[in-house]
Amino acid sequence: MHRAVIIGGGFGGLYAARALRHEKLSVTLVDRRNFHLFQPLLYQVATGALSPGEIAAPLRVLLRKQKNAQVLLAEAADLDATNRSVILDKGEIPYDTLVVAAGARHFYFGHDSWEPIAPGLKSLEDATRIRHKILYAFEAAEREPDPERRRSWLTFVIVGAGPTGVELAGALAEIANDSLRHDFRSIHPEESRILLLDALPRVLTAFPESLSAAAERQLIRLGVRVIPSVRVTEIDPNGVTYSTATSIERIEAHTVLWAAGVKPSPWGEILARRAGAELDRAGRVKVNADLTVPGHPEIFVIGDLAYREQDGVLLPGIAPVAMQEGRYVASVILDRLGSRSVRPFRYFDKGYLAVIGRNKGVGVIGGVKLHGWIAWFVWLFVHLMYLAQALNRVLVFLRWGYQYVTFYRGARLITGDDSPKHQEEPR
Amino acid sequence: MHRAVIIGGGFGGLYAARALRHEKLSVTLVDRRNFHLFQPLLYQVATGALSPGEIAAPLRVLLRKQKNAQVLLAEAADLDATNRSVILDKGEIPYDTLVVAAGARHFYFGHDSWEPIAPGLKSLEDATRIRHKILYAFEAAEREPDPERRRSWLTFVIVGAGPTGVELAGALAEIANDSLRHDFRSIHPEESRILLLDALPRVLTAFPESLSAAAERQLIRLGVRVIPSVRVTEIDPNGVTYSTATSIERIEAHTVLWAAGVKPSPWGEILARRAGAELDRAGRVKVNADLTVPGHPEIFVIGDLAYREQDGVLLPGIAPVAMQEGRYVASVILDRLGSRSVRPFRYFDKGYLAVIGRNKGVGVIGGVKLHGWIAWFVWLFVHLMYLAQALNRVLVFLRWGYQYVTFYRGARLITGDDSPKHQEEPR
Repeated sequence: MHRAVIIGGGFGGLYAARALRHEKLSVTLVDRRNFHLFQPLLYQVATGALSPGEIAAPLRVLLRKQKNAQVLLAEAADLDATNRSVILDKGEIPYDTLVVAAGARHFYFGHDSWEPIAPGLKSLEDATRIRHKILYAFEAAEREPDPERRRSWLTFVIVGAGPTGVELAGALAEIANDSLRHDFRSIHPEESRILLLDALPRVLTAFPESLSAAAERQLIRLGVRVIPSVRVTEIDPNGVTYSTATSIERIEAHTVLWAAGVKPSPWGEILARRAGAELDRAGRVKVNADLTVPGHPEIFVIGDLAYREQDGVLLPGIAPVAMQEGRYVASVILDRLGSRSVRPFRYFDKGYLAVIGRNKGVGVIGGVKLHGWIAWFVWLFVHLMYLAQALNRVLVFLRWGYQYVTFYRGARLITGDDSPKHQEEPR
Repeated sequence: MHRAVIIGGGFGGLYAARALRHEKLSVTLVDRRNFHLFQPLLYQVATGALSPGEIAAPLRVLLRKQKNAQVLLAEAADLDATNRSVILDKGEIPYDTLVVAAGARHFYFGHDSWEPIAPGLKSLEDATRIRHKILYAFEAAEREPDPERRRSWLTFVIVGAGPTGVELAGALAEIANDSLRHDFRSIHPEESRILLLDALPRVLTAFPESLSAAAERQLIRLGVRVIPSVRVTEIDPNGVTYSTATSIERIEAHTVLWAAGVKPSPWGEILARRAGAELDRAGRVKVNADLTVPGHPEIFVIGDLAYREQDGVLLPGIAPVAMQEGRYVASVILDRLGSRSVRPFRYFDKGYLAVIGRNKGVGVIGGVKLHGWIAWFVWLFVHLMYLAQALNRVLVFLRWGYQYVTFYRGARLITGDDSPKHQEEPR
């Protein structure tokens, strides 16, 4: 029986596995984690609106009824391309077709020392760490008698004004303006400063210019200060230093969040070393028109790890691309088994959306530009529909409805083994 | 204005703070955590039925509308009883009345080295750690080709057959028998062995003997093996050694959970040292009939930290006792401010319950013994009613309803920065 092995249970890997159901082959999905994470809603966990369990679904449950599929909780550590075998942390697993959907992590452009100070947002642990950081900042401000230091606690800097940065900034503004408004006795959370920095001259550069402008207007209305065209030169526990075209500036802030760079998984390097794959500058794997590694028709690379241009433009690292690639790869595997000819992959762009806050968002759906409440509403609807489980859809819907009416964020917990008192105290 | 300071935001501290609303005094609640935890449902987080956010509520939100109350996220580190001041990790806070409701942790009877191997269940982090351990065991078994080692992964030992131990054992049995039944390809989760050990001759010793027997019958029906009258002599990553009256036995098991001993908070020691309080053998503070520390009418001790007998029996460390003590202390503070005389504390026992599984439980309500589905149903109802927030009540109700119909446990996530591959691998 043909053995398909899939590395990674994100959108790419999961959709590939599912599209291979009913077929006469065995499917093994390898992931380090036991759940599929709905990454587009991760920022809502980071900002206390949703609980981790509401945007994650166990892979075993998602593939429970698919009798030809099995899930392996393991670290895919290396590749033996000659013998067609994936080396695991313990043991190995042979394949006839390999689908690498190992995703990406954040990237600090060589400044790895910034990572503990300015966490990025890719995993559930990242999200609870950021939630800890944000909520703790208000608590520390409440306890801080010195006005200068208090101001540093109430200053939030987000580096990177792509969708994640914009969504984090908008949510932070709502936390400060509404959710926490009546909860403190010594501080006024609505006096918080939220700064959104980017190297490029506008927010959401992947969006049409008119929508960038709309997004910026909506952010400003929420109280977010957008600082474009700057280069961050230093991040330390007390703040951020950046350079503009003409000057060097400094912001004193104890909370800095990273939404700027993305680095593909180490599987890029592994494929380069073991299968001769060519990487782009960021470390993505350049793939053929059928998403295979050149010279290795049995190895596919999909999702954030793949470098593929369409009409001269790089396909973005977003869920819809990964989902379509996953389904496409499954169809190629089946076409080959049936000796049918294979057509090249083509991404069908249904649209894209970014939400900024309550009744606020921008997007393009079916070529039509949307902004304001209609973009927000479509965003809510689409994200609810794509959540992997019916129960989670109901729970998220309830949380959102309750939050819309009361401004209450239900998952405002400061957790983690670095308990508050061990939080790194800036000097 | 009279300054009441409360240490601890559990049931005792929170109910004391709330009962002091509307009154002309200032209330400061100090806690290391920013949330009130509904501990009676903690085992449901540990077994993947509920999410942490569903049984925790931010203290600031619970006390938002109480204008005379403020919440301080801080570690209460020491006491200056002479100057009536609580020393915090940073700064200090003066009081006219102090209420110490600092709770308890687990206790390993001098074997502290067992703690990392056999975690106890007191905090949300404990619960996610236990969840990690339980779910990872099934994953490791799925990957393990050796039948002996596989059996060790599928053996679960719970030390301590009080309510927490019984509830954990019952939930584990349901996970193995139902929730995971169709999720694995190499193992049969229902072949798991679940062993419940206790030093005493019966489970739930605080309950009437007939109910202990009923609980044991229900556990056995779920497949739990109850091993009474044993003393655990060693716990290591590969298993548990215990001695019976006649022999020494060994169980090979990679998952051992601790539900045996409880040790009062270090505030017992602090009160002994700084205010001359007398402690019982376990470290609880012996209090007067009005719950004050002898010689210090301005210092109250309530909840799991207090040692108080009623009709010759020690009041148990359970939520209803702490809640009633909290309310009582508030009434004493107000009686004193109004120069009214103070009556001694008396616990009114409405009853107690332990749930064992679906349609299974035991308890006494208003003097009437219950077991089976009626005890289970009353337990569900009571716990839903006492949850601190309406939203959480709805979310928990939904999860329970869904689980009842589908056997699905929605919060089956292996999270934590010790990612699966770093899990301690026994040799």
